[in-house]
Amino acid sequence: MPCLGFTLLLVLALGASLGAAFPWGTLKNGCSLSKYQFLVPHELKAVQRMKEQFEDIMLLSDRKCHTRLFYRKWNTAELSVHDRVMLVEAELDLATTVLELPVPPSFAEMRHQPLAFLTQAREDLRDCMAMEDPSHQPSGKLRHWLQKLQTAKKTESNGCLEASAILHLFQILNDLQCAALQDQCT
Amino acid sequence: MPCLGFTLLLVLALGASLGAAFPWGTLKNGCSLSKYQFLVPHELKAVQRMKEQFEDIMLLSDRKCHTRLFYRKWNTAELSVHDRVMLVEAELDLATTVLELPVPPSFAEMRHQPLAFLTQAREDLRDCMAMEDPSHQPSGKLRHWLQKLQTAKKTESNGCLEASAILHLFQILNDLQCAALQDQCT
Repeated sequence: MPCLGFTLLLVLALGASLGAAFPWGTLKNGCSLSKYQFLVPHELKAVQRMKEQFEDIMLLSDRKCHTRLFYRKWNTAELSVHDRVMLVEAELDLATTVLELPVPPSFAEMRHQPLAFLTQAREDLRDCMAMEDPSHQPSGKLRHWLQKLQTAKKTESNGCLEASAILHLFQILNDLQCAALQDQCT
Repeated sequence: MPCLGFTLLLVLALGASLGAAFPWGTLKNGCSLSKYQFLVPHELKAVQRMKEQFEDIMLLSDRKCHTRLFYRKWNTAELSVHDRVMLVEAELDLATTVLELPVPPSFAEMRHQPLAFLTQAREDLRDCMAMEDPSHQPSGKLRHWLQKLQTAKKTESNGCLEASAILHLFQILNDLQCAALQDQCT
């Protein structure tokens, strides 16, 4: 279903909700996340193609999880901007790790572009984190979620981690966009 | 990630490929599939919301399949129009069956609108099939796929069938659109 790749164009146009929000901290000058405020259609299409390919074959392997890795009762926009950066860095760290798992050549080819994009985004987030006050502590709700993620990375199977991350790639990209939009993400 | 619901709008705009195709049979007058040539955004959004909700919880259950139910080496547009109608009726029959499986109330609510839409489409397809020559035999490749589907319905678990159908709902909707577009789907 090649046409479904095009559905991603509207993620670009209608990605994170824009509004007049109260500022929740800002990113340091030199922190280059502004390019993620509006995600490039060809990158989104590559992610969508990869997700569709994965959905086609994922049921042939055991993917069962004991927990919902991406479940949380709060919205990303509720976090401070610094916390959003920490959240997305952790999400992208998982996503890039699972995308680097060995797969047949035809799948590896489809993963190449999304992996390069997500890896670059993770590096940009890490650069931003390095500029911030090193004593910054995440909020309680983020800390709780990060702990849950760390536990899952140790206890869940690769099949579960891979499926969880790939099925939630657009949630991760929305979170990335929300971090980049700073007080414009509500 | 509420914004992802909007991605569906482009399925409407860019659904099946349009082109100057050779005619592959036509549907009888009175066969009311023309309304599926362009799928209504609010129906697509409802399907997308349900799919996202399902993806959030599907990994908590065993979903492993022994076969790829929706895999085939041919495109829907290669089939005659009558064969496309038979294909989509079978796909929708599976989809509506799995959407009627018992689920918690919050999930049942989310399934209500898509189930009503898909059930109506299946009935419209059945009406069209009833108008056709009852001796019509599907092509070899369609017959082979239909047999594979019938076998899977008997041998695969409900968890597998549900996940296969829901993950492929947009493929099914593309096939529905392709059947409705007749010789305009290439």
